[in-house]
Amino acid sequence: MYASDGTDRASVVGRKPLTDFVIEALTSVGAGEADAALTADVLVAADLAGVDSHGVARLRRYVEGLRNGTINGRARPRVEREHGGVSVVDAQNGLGQPALCFAVDLAVERAREHGVAAVAVRRSNHIGIAGWYTERAARSGTFAMVTTNATPQVAPTGAAEPMFGTDPVSYAVPTAGEPLCYDAATSIVPRGKLERLDREGKPMLPGWAVGPDGATSTDIPRVVAGLKAREGYALLPVGGLGEEYGGHKGSGIGLLAELLCGPLTGASWSKHTYGPEGADLGQFVLCLDLAALGDAGRITRDVDAMAAEIRAARRADEDVPVRLPGERRHRCAEERSARGIPLLPPVVRDLGKIAELTGIKPLGARDGQDA
Amino acid sequence: MYASDGTDRASVVGRKPLTDFVIEALTSVGAGEADAALTADVLVAADLAGVDSHGVARLRRYVEGLRNGTINGRARPRVEREHGGVSVVDAQNGLGQPALCFAVDLAVERAREHGVAAVAVRRSNHIGIAGWYTERAARSGTFAMVTTNATPQVAPTGAAEPMFGTDPVSYAVPTAGEPLCYDAATSIVPRGKLERLDREGKPMLPGWAVGPDGATSTDIPRVVAGLKAREGYALLPVGGLGEEYGGHKGSGIGLLAELLCGPLTGASWSKHTYGPEGADLGQFVLCLDLAALGDAGRITRDVDAMAAEIRAARRADEDVPVRLPGERRHRCAEERSARGIPLLPPVVRDLGKIAELTGIKPLGARDGQDA
Repeated sequence: MYASDGTDRASVVGRKPLTDFVIEALTSVGAGEADAALTADVLVAADLAGVDSHGVARLRRYVEGLRNGTINGRARPRVEREHGGVSVVDAQNGLGQPALCFAVDLAVERAREHGVAAVAVRRSNHIGIAGWYTERAARSGTFAMVTTNATPQVAPTGAAEPMFGTDPVSYAVPTAGEPLCYDAATSIVPRGKLERLDREGKPMLPGWAVGPDGATSTDIPRVVAGLKAREGYALLPVGGLGEEYGGHKGSGIGLLAELLCGPLTGASWSKHTYGPEGADLGQFVLCLDLAALGDAGRITRDVDAMAAEIRAARRADEDVPVRLPGERRHRCAEERSARGIPLLPPVVRDLGKIAELTGIKPLGARDGQDA
Repeated sequence: MYASDGTDRASVVGRKPLTDFVIEALTSVGAGEADAALTADVLVAADLAGVDSHGVARLRRYVEGLRNGTINGRARPRVEREHGGVSVVDAQNGLGQPALCFAVDLAVERAREHGVAAVAVRRSNHIGIAGWYTERAARSGTFAMVTTNATPQVAPTGAAEPMFGTDPVSYAVPTAGEPLCYDAATSIVPRGKLERLDREGKPMLPGWAVGPDGATSTDIPRVVAGLKAREGYALLPVGGLGEEYGGHKGSGIGLLAELLCGPLTGASWSKHTYGPEGADLGQFVLCLDLAALGDAGRITRDVDAMAAEIRAARRADEDVPVRLPGERRHRCAEERSARGIPLLPPVVRDLGKIAELTGIKPLGARDGQDA
């Protein structure tokens, strides 16, 4: 995930018309109204937060999947197993957003009863930004973690082929204000960031990706093409190549996501996702009811006090504040809520294609934006 | 944590006499027999596994703490709160090993009942290697995670002072053989590794640590002294300085450990540990009963199949196998079980001091070793 660095050459769109466009696009290809609205909310939340790689830029793939039947628009997530605080949900190859939202709401409810709950989702699809779900749970007074697997793009330490997904890990905890929410891929950079740098003619750093020979590559057009074509190119986990900067530790966190979302959930692990039967992605949700751990008010005050002390730390660079996870996203969302969401030309073209494909009113023909 | 790189100039000690020495040392300063035996097992397991920084090299601090009353040798971990699968344990400022072992066994038991269990431990002390506990839980058929906070040594991204502990995160899952067990500090390197490189006259890499000015420093004697004296020097999280290699992501995983072990547990967060009332460390345990998630045999087979595929990945370096977490530690433990445990001269001196202080038989005067 990455934040777009500006509105140069971008069309600026209002939240409402963009959301309406997404809902109409999804319902036009068979998604139910409620599922479409929820999916639109998650996608547009990413665009608002500056995580452009996970916003409406993904819509075309969803629309195509629903049209050609690789995603089931009429799926209803089904609890297929339940024991105490543990539930396993079969997403029935539906859109990932309604499936994971169902799982998170279930986890919050079960955590109220059991203090802690784990919900595993199998036969699922792409979920958008993981932080949307953990923030939702945190607003209900729980600590929440969410992780998902994904198409294989990351080489575990020592390997020279993509096996793990960029598998984001997100957690959120209530505070006096917005939840404190961490949400990041377990690779150093996602493919979307390389694609953007490539478009902008900017360089990439050594240690972000390797070629089929296992050596780090900075040939950005070749890396981008090689990742896309699955030609053995791979991103590297947080910490980079080898062990000198803790790459094996980043790789171990990626493996944690793979274990939780694959074998433990009963979904495919990333290497085997997107097979002939559908994506079969897995997601894993953990919720802890703060009230089970102690006085929820005391816990929230302690979180706030700790956050304040971290923000007030001596700065490495006097001009750069010490930020907590999610602060940049929250600030971006405030700005974009007020001024509109900038969409880059390829995304605008994609949305135009979707209007053509589905026959819905093009975004550019709606009020409240200039796309 | 780090693996010692050989037995040069080291004394080689048998497992049994070393374990006996630790037990006698601890009981001589007021620890109960069972607590001493458990603590000895955890410490010697680290030395066997090659994690020398967390083995008997720590014993002197435990003995001194028990002698001067900053650790309570007669503490009994007490469940002070319980709701469904969540328990909060007051370790009563006793040794960390018996407290965390109590918590892990409780978590395994509660996970059987509730499918998932979380146990938070407050008023605790140093626990040795986190992997000892997750492996123990995994041998009972659960997936387990453990994390702990620690004395502040790591600067969060953007900060130029130590705030987080090196906070290890460990997880383990059953396989057909030994559990697959990840166990690593959330900093790139622990202080112990820098101390060893300093002793050996070897260099450190830029990006491992910063000075009080927030800039990376490779002046290893100064960094080691500055960390020890708390002069504003700090280690960096996995991913290193800034955000280019994902340092902010490593920092976010450190923050996760701090949240779970501090505010959520009701213990101090790392910045405020080791106050006048004792260390007040926090630990957090999560256990998932595989049988709650599905057929435990199927899950274990899936974990084994995934592990086999990762091991068989195309190698980045033909001569270096792709390893899964814990494999190196298991191999080292086999070797050292057979050939003895090498102890470096400063550790041997420390153990000699302990014998002097407590009046127990020196290690060198026992059978089965040459120290």
